[in-house]
Amino acid sequence: MMPAVSPNGDGRTVRDRARLLVSSADRRGIVAAVSALLARHGANIVESDQHSTHPTDGRFFMRMVFDLPELSERLAELRTAFDRDVGGPFGMEWRIVRVAERKRMIVLASREPHCLLDILWRQRSGDLDADIPCVISNHPDHREAVEALGLPYVHVPVTRETKPEAEREILTYVRGEADFAVLARYMQILSGAFLAAVGMPIINIHHSFLPAFAGAQPYRQAFERGVKIIGATAHYVTEELDAGPIIEQDVARVTHRADVEELARLGADIERVVLARAVRWHLEDRILASGGKTVVFA
Amino acid sequence: MMPAVSPNGDGRTVRDRARLLVSSADRRGIVAAVSALLARHGANIVESDQHSTHPTDGRFFMRMVFDLPELSERLAELRTAFDRDVGGPFGMEWRIVRVAERKRMIVLASREPHCLLDILWRQRSGDLDADIPCVISNHPDHREAVEALGLPYVHVPVTRETKPEAEREILTYVRGEADFAVLARYMQILSGAFLAAVGMPIINIHHSFLPAFAGAQPYRQAFERGVKIIGATAHYVTEELDAGPIIEQDVARVTHRADVEELARLGADIERVVLARAVRWHLEDRILASGGKTVVFA
Amino acid sequence: MMPAVSPNGDGRTVRDRARLLVSSADRRGIVAAVSALLARHGANIVESDQHSTHPTDGRFFMRMVFDLPELSERLAELRTAFDRDVGGPFGMEWRIVRVAERKRMIVLASREPHCLLDILWRQRSGDLDADIPCVISNHPDHREAVEALGLPYVHVPVTRETKPEAEREILTYVRGEADFAVLARYMQILSGAFLAAVGMPIINIHHSFLPAFAGAQPYRQAFERGVKIIGATAHYVTEELDAGPIIEQDVARVTHRADVEELARLGADIERVVLARAVRWHLEDRILASGGKTVVFA
Amino acid sequence: MMPAVSPNGDGRTVRDRARLLVSSADRRGIVAAVSALLARHGANIVESDQHSTHPTDGRFFMRMVFDLPELSERLAELRTAFDRDVGGPFGMEWRIVRVAERKRMIVLASREPHCLLDILWRQRSGDLDADIPCVISNHPDHREAVEALGLPYVHVPVTRETKPEAEREILTYVRGEADFAVLARYMQILSGAFLAAVGMPIINIHHSFLPAFAGAQPYRQAFERGVKIIGATAHYVTEELDAGPIIEQDVARVTHRADVEELARLGADIERVVLARAVRWHLEDRILASGGKTVVFA
Repeated sequence: MMPAVSPNGDGRTVRDRARLLVSSADRRGIVAAVSALLARHGANIVESDQHSTHPTDGRFFMRMVFDLPELSERLAELRTAFDRDVGGPFGMEWRIVRVAERKRMIVLASREPHCLLDILWRQRSGDLDADIPCVISNHPDHREAVEALGLPYVHVPVTRETKPEAEREILTYVRGEADFAVLARYMQILSGAFLAAVGMPIINIHHSFLPAFAGAQPYRQAFERGVKIIGATAHYVTEELDAGPIIEQDVARVTHRADVEELARLGADIERVVLARAVRWHLEDRILASGGKTVVFA
Repeated sequence: MMPAVSPNGDGRTVRDRARLLVSSADRRGIVAAVSALLARHGANIVESDQHSTHPTDGRFFMRMVFDLPELSERLAELRTAFDRDVGGPFGMEWRIVRVAERKRMIVLASREPHCLLDILWRQRSGDLDADIPCVISNHPDHREAVEALGLPYVHVPVTRETKPEAEREILTYVRGEADFAVLARYMQILSGAFLAAVGMPIINIHHSFLPAFAGAQPYRQAFERGVKIIGATAHYVTEELDAGPIIEQDVARVTHRADVEELARLGADIERVVLARAVRWHLEDRILASGGKTVVFA
Repeated sequence: MMPAVSPNGDGRTVRDRARLLVSSADRRGIVAAVSALLARHGANIVESDQHSTHPTDGRFFMRMVFDLPELSERLAELRTAFDRDVGGPFGMEWRIVRVAERKRMIVLASREPHCLLDILWRQRSGDLDADIPCVISNHPDHREAVEALGLPYVHVPVTRETKPEAEREILTYVRGEADFAVLARYMQILSGAFLAAVGMPIINIHHSFLPAFAGAQPYRQAFERGVKIIGATAHYVTEELDAGPIIEQDVARVTHRADVEELARLGADIERVVLARAVRWHLEDRILASGGKTVVFA
Repeated sequence: MMPAVSPNGDGRTVRDRARLLVSSADRRGIVAAVSALLARHGANIVESDQHSTHPTDGRFFMRMVFDLPELSERLAELRTAFDRDVGGPFGMEWRIVRVAERKRMIVLASREPHCLLDILWRQRSGDLDADIPCVISNHPDHREAVEALGLPYVHVPVTRETKPEAEREILTYVRGEADFAVLARYMQILSGAFLAAVGMPIINIHHSFLPAFAGAQPYRQAFERGVKIIGATAHYVTEELDAGPIIEQDVARVTHRADVEELARLGADIERVVLARAVRWHLEDRILASGGKTVVFA
């Protein structure tokens, strides 16, 4: 029987492939212990990245991708052994995920379509290997475009008064239905109560080079400050606005000729590329967040 | 007789070449009036850039480079005519400078050598077409390297107590001796009194992507925030620290692997390139500052 | 009556706005002559760019944008005067175009959708200010997506045997129906006969950094050479394959980790941005081609 | 006793630190075998990178950095054990190098100073952790600048007739005296005989974005083709001119305004940064060449 091949075309077989993510205090022998355990179980390591914030006194991060024949049947056993022999003794945070198990991704958007449509098209083309249970928006604008792609569109209007109620409604579509959420230019600030209740990572795209121009109207701020470079930042959402761990950033040069609208237009191209990269890395379990920052094994 | 050729190798003859800089309220017919006047005097426009912040209600900026035979002899007459026929009637701020008249540039530095040496080498290679009356530093470290290039080195130590006196000493080396100053990683904050007294533009390189990480230790700030891109900013110095008009910025990608020292090392390469660009544009009269921002006709 | 405002939001009024494009041998007084003529007719110059390949012996290029009240009524008269007083005497190639007159753009594509859809979405969002008479493809794949956007889809299959016939069919859709064409990853080589007959500019996106990796399978070529940067190139089509005047290029960093498919995936993001920029500049008459190269007043 | 600290300031102790480089056919269990052996000997892995060109059928590359107390005393024993238990059985090419053992680097240059001086300054500032036995040039121009840095300057003129003799003279300065050589804009083509005899890696900087514009006068070629981006390429020298494995590339945007000299000036800034990166990666054993390409664990 031929192994399944992932849709992103990089030739990786996915049926028997898993990813191991580790975060722990750095201690001698971690790599040896992990790789020995995987070897004992017959796994073949095909990718491995590690990072230590300090050789003697730091935090240790590792991502390994391995192939294990009959993965589905043997995963429970492997997890038990890993916890007993390595994860527990070394005091690790760890997880092992099957590559074949697609993540479910909820997308939220407001009026601007560029990030939303970009995410949807990339998912459709196989570039983003995820399922999309639905798209949620506080505006009705994108219903036709979204439904044309065969995806459910949920319109949840938000006003100052109805915000708690709206967030409760959103929760019903998200909790248990998705593994993470993407704010594709969703312009509502999510409350702390919502973030506490939703219990999943949320990726946001901020239309500036954070921490410059946090908050509202960053392109106007950039214009008024006369910067020569604009940028966009994808980050995980935390309760503190625009201060969550940065996943990815990119920039473009601008000149005095660009007015605010032109900055926004140029910025839109950066935003969608940066957001797409962040979502892809999240889907591929390449991101480990720690201490307000991320380690990205890209 | 052969015309002199500029050292930056772009084939421009400099003896009879001048630059006209204009800044004014935007009004119909400015370009026509200016170019007609230049034509009447026999000048040939070889470069022209203009920018208007708004078609009907904006501020107008223009830079023209022109050749006028016997420029030295005829410049006074041209300036008089320009003021009478165009500059006055249109309410312009304007200046005409001879390209052959080299600007005098004072360079100030502290301990780190990379920006200082880069500026000096570029000047020596002809890349920066300026005279350097002297280099001033609050440290003795670079004396040998600077004097080896045939340039005077002035050591003006600065402590909290001696700062006013030190600034008065610096003034004696700068005022009347230079046309502008470059802070090539000069880590002392210049007082408002000094800035008021010195009466010339001062270009600074800030080792971050302003307005992110203004103030001290920007690479540490960047490290702690976990940014994925670092940058440098060249700007004109104003009394408000790190808030002067931005001239140029550039960036480089970094990953979680870079610690503070590595960020500083990567940043140094950006700093010197950004500072060199800003100085070159200043020397070529390509920068018009207005309203806290710059128009750069690069 | 309020003037119309262009959809790209840069505040330009379009009803009374025109663009003047000039290309000629460089001669003293050109700028003065042109701007004086425009001033005499009551036009207000709102943008102006010029370039000369050599101060005394070069070719001169200029783009001016100006506002002239009652433009539609007075354009014929202005053109006559321009030709008589300036264009003729200086031996210029020139044209004056009304900004309000939208260009008609035919889009051709093959199997890959990313460039095609990107162009269509940008046109729909107002980012590309053009009319699209139809989309032509040698494959049926995109019919649904294109027709969902309300645009006609013409399927013209091409085989080695039917190519002349297919090109004749394409001509019937293009000639007189469009002002220019865009090859949005159209993988058929257009014959010299077609190019001679079609009589309009054609913009192509080549999926590499030309002149490196011209011809077929550039991402495979790039992979085999082990380059650290990949790129894309938008250029005007000429009879010599991949050798037409370059309009725009951009690049992205890659590492040894990227296989051919990953290079293609990363490249697709560059291709669509580069193609969109080239098309936009063409629509805004920012490109002057000369001697196998372009002057782009971006 | 305090461990020595590397001059590049990244806080790594160097006295007891080593790097392991591995290249082999990919086989199950390599990582486990290597890390188990290091663990048995008491080494602590502080960095690890690996790359496999194909999960089942590819070539495997690995770089590990580890600390081993009493490294100097125990290195011979470790090498013997590694060869017997891992290197031999897996058919690896491998080496273990001590970080504290500085590489000796010969620098060759011709007339242009920017790359030469950049390398020398970076070495002096501790940015490049290498010894420089001497600088060799076919021109006398840089003697003063090089000797001012305390380095021997060897002038070996080269003409068409004297080339074989000149190369023999260069060999006497290089063979046994250096671990690798850097061509910092050395404009003589090295013969196959020389390359065969010299027996060490040679890094070259080519002033263009290879494979575009290989050969002579790349900036002129770039100008004539009208490219919108220029670049530089650092590569290992092989007998086939400009076709050796690419180590690093970078680029900068240019416009129609740049003439050949301006392209060269802009290019010089890219060249020196790209060359410095390549040399640094070589010094840190981050580059594995294979099949005409490189794996760079940057």
